Order: sequence, then structure tokens, then C-alpha cells
Amino acid sequence: MEHVSTSRCYGGEQEVWKHDSKATGTPMTFAIYIPDHAPGEKLPVIWWLSGLTCTHENAMIKCEYKQACAQHGVIFVCPDTSPRGEGVPNHEDYDFGQGAGFYVNATQEPWAEHFRMRDYVEEELPALVAEHFPVDMDRQGISGHSMGGHGALTVSLRNPGRFRSTSAFAPIVSPLNCPWGDKALTGYLGEDRTAWREYDSVALIEDGARLGEVLVDQGTADEWLEGQLKTHLFADACRDAGIDATIRMQEGYDHSYFFVSTFIADHVAWHAERLKA
Amino acid sequence: MEHVSTSRCYGGEQEVWKHDSKATGTPMTFAIYIPDHAPGEKLPVIWWLSGLTCTHENAMIKCEYKQACAQHGVIFVCPDTSPRGEGVPNHEDYDFGQGAGFYVNATQEPWAEHFRMRDYVEEELPALVAEHFPVDMDRQGISGHSMGGHGALTVSLRNPGRFRSTSAFAPIVSPLNCPWGDKALTGYLGEDRTAWREYDSVALIEDGARLGEVLVDQGTADEWLEGQLKTHLFADACRDAGIDATIRMQEGYDHSYFFVSTFIADHVAWHAERLKA
Repeated sequence: MEHVSTSRCYGGEQEVWKHDSKATGTPMTFAIYIPDHAPGEKLPVIWWLSGLTCTHENAMIKCEYKQACAQHGVIFVCPDTSPRGEGVPNHEDYDFGQGAGFYVNATQEPWAEHFRMRDYVEEELPALVAEHFPVDMDRQGISGHSMGGHGALTVSLRNPGRFRSTSAFAPIVSPLNCPWGDKALTGYLGEDRTAWREYDSVALIEDGARLGEVLVDQGTADEWLEGQLKTHLFADACRDAGIDATIRMQEGYDHSYFFVSTFIADHVAWHAERLKA
Repeated sequence: MEHVSTSRCYGGEQEVWKHDSKATGTPMTFAIYIPDHAPGEKLPVIWWLSGLTCTHENAMIKCEYKQACAQHGVIFVCPDTSPRGEGVPNHEDYDFGQGAGFYVNATQEPWAEHFRMRDYVEEELPALVAEHFPVDMDRQGISGHSMGGHGALTVSLRNPGRFRSTSAFAPIVSPLNCPWGDKALTGYLGEDRTAWREYDSVALIEDGARLGEVLVDQGTADEWLEGQLKTHLFADACRDAGIDATIRMQEGYDHSYFFVSTFIADHVAWHAERLKA
């Protein structure tokens, strides 16, 4: 692992690290915020998955999680959203290719070699962070924004028991039912939509996956709510499955990190309550 | 004025506006955060001056002022740091030309026509904001970071009585005594260093200017502290002049917005206490 930077922030360290990923076959960069803690102490961790166009950096500078994480003693990890680099295929659109990995293991060419973000965020990065940082892997939470909200919900649904807490901001709840999902999953996974179901929170719930409870914030002025995010599909699926879902429609808030930053402290506190119970 | 964007954030509106500036002869963009308030109510305002390389956007996304401003009912304005555009002279270095206006009225060619940031932040922008937004111009505070800390201190020192509160983060306290200052003020103002004194907080104090009181935060791990910022020169000048200066050396903090964001809520509260007294 290559140390990129450390800055003191809110009584903790905001660090950036780079490493060669086996999952993606590329260097990958991630940010990790570590509150001050007693020597030898292990802290609970929240994994944060970012949205379209983001790198590890967007949440690190815009999400305003650090104060709440310092207060509650929680580590916060922000991975990148895709492999990157010269040998990595890309696409001119913002919603496909680099910056738009959708947290899937691609099966279609030319994406299959590098676009293995599911393996990266589900297996490789957690193992790496557990080895090098003072995280208590028995106390993990997961959250994310937009495409990363989709990531957080689906990773949690596919790994029952791993996360004590799951939340999302303005998640893409059903790639099977929106243009962003159609485009990305057709490209990464192919035309057979049955292969998409493990990357769709609504389909996962329909197919029997469960969450203990879940917190979702969604802005009512979000320009993508009706056409892409479709929060109601997730609300309906949770209701039908008996999942304890708190879905808060936040009046007047849009899709940006101005929205996320407003409510991140609530989410960190909500996670911390469950991670430290 | 051209409306660029509005996003709801922490129970207020983060807005961005663009206008044709008479001072600089260019379009100028600024960010303004307006907490929710009663109809007709006017709110105190904090002017924020940013550092080298910044636009209006850096503080808006990194400074984490919004929660504190919402809590205290204070408007927060972030102007750009220089004129910009194709017809505007520039320089390849990060610390001179566009993004590095140093809040001076340039007298040297080719800068004199557009680089009139003193007029812009001291006169034109306040008048514009007072006309279009619910600010109470009897309750103004000013702050800033690095080059913008220099701006905040010098604007306040030159305008006695205008600001009820003045603070700074890691300010360049004396352009007369550092390489950044040498380069920028030689370029904008020429070789005659007596013309620089009205743009140097230490020289202004030596020449008789006063502040009621002032709050400064400075990180001890700031890579520019020794060679450029030289906080001790300001501390000495305040002591000699009997100015009530609170200068807090923050252990382990660097020069970044990770440092600023950690202490901005303290500053907003400190300003609010004076603005609402």
C-alpha cells in the first residue's frame, strides 16, 4: 500500500491510500477517516459507496461525515467507483465506464477484465482495511449515495449478517427499472436480465434477501427521483417483505452532496447506535 | 445578475450567482448561503475570502460552514479570488494571476485593467449583495483562509467600524515578508514597497490601523507556516498595538480545508456572538 496523504481533521486523521487491486487489476485509491482512539482499540466502520462520476475524493471533501465520525468514534471508508487508468476501457458518457462501475462484476467485453467492483468492495477492500487499520470487523455498517446507495443496499442484501446497519441517500433502488440501470447493466452484464437481479435491491428482496432494518433519505426536489431512483419501488418491496424501512422524504432537497451533507450526521449517529449497541 | 444554482442545505439555501463586475470588467461568480428566516427579516453576514487557486466553489463545498450558519442565522458569502476569462491576463504559476488576485487593486500592466479585487470585495460585491439579499449591513463579519486570511485582515483594518467581527485561518499576515507576497505584490503593485503597506496586516497595524479584536486559527503542521504565513509577526504587531488577538495554534493541523472545516463552526459561533450582540 502506498500512502498518499494524511490530514488532521476534527480530532482524527483523514488518510488516502493507493494499492494494486487483484480484483480490478489496476491501482485503486481509497480514503479512510480514523478518529483518535486508545492504543490497540478497534473501532466500528462505515463503508461509503459513492455515486456516478465520483472518485474516493468527492465524499471525502463534500460529505461532511468527519465531525460525526469523530464524535461517535467510527471509521469511515470511501473507495473509488470504478477502475481507472490508460489500459482500462472507458466510455464517453458520465453514466457508463470509468466513474460508473455500479458495484458489479462485469461479464461482458471489454469490461469483464477490470470492472470487478463487486469483488473489490465486497471482498478485497474489506480484507485489506481489516489488515492495516484498527477496524472491528464485527461492527460494520454500509451506506452510499445514488449509484452508491444502490451499492450499499445490494451489498448488504447479498451478505446477510455482515452489516449491523445499512442506510442510503437517494439510492438507485432498481437498475432493472430505470435508464441508468438499463444502460449500465446491459453493458456490464449483457441482455439476460435474470443476471441483473443480484444487483437490484428490489429484485433481491423479491427473491428472498432480507435486511434487519434500513434508513433511506431521499430529497423531494431530486431531479432523478421520478425517472431513475423510484424510491417507492423499494418502499413497496420492504413493506411486502416485512422489512423495517425508514424512508424519509426530505422536502426541497436535491440530489447533490448539499443534500447528503445535511443528513449524514443523522446517518452516522444511526449507524453508531447499532454498531456500538 | 444571473442565477446559476440553488440547493437546499441544512435548512437553508446554498445559491450561486453570476454578474458583470464593473470593478474587474469581467463576469464574476459568487456563492451565498442563506438560512431560512422570517419574511422581511435581515440576517447578519460573514464575508469569506478564499485562498490561492480557489474559486467561489472551494469554500462552498469544503468549508463546512453551512450547519453553523443555519444554527446561528448568519448569511455566508464566498466570492471568487480573481477575475477570469479569455481576455484576462494570466500566469502559469498557481500563486500569481488568475486564482491569485491577493485582494489588491493592481497598478501594473498587464494586471491593472482587471485585477481590482480590492474594489470588488470592499465595495462592489457588498453593495450588490445588500441590494439583492436579506443582509443586515450593520452586522457584518469577515473571515478567510491563507491569501483570503490576508484579505480578511487587511480589508477589516482598512475599514474601521465596518466589521463587528474579524477572523482568519492560516492567514498570510505580511506579504512584505514572504515569497508569495514578494512575487504577487511586485507583479500587481510594482517595486515600490511603500505601496504594499495597505495590503499587509502587520504594516497596517504599524501604521496605526486597529481591530477591535481578532480570532486566528493556525495549524502547527502547516507546511507554509514558517516560510510564508509567519503568524508570529501578526501576533507581535497585535501585542505591540494593544489589539485583542486570540491566536490559536492548532496542534497537528495542516493548511488544507480539512483544517479549516474543523474549526469553522467555532469561528461562525464567535462571529455570531458579536454580530447578534
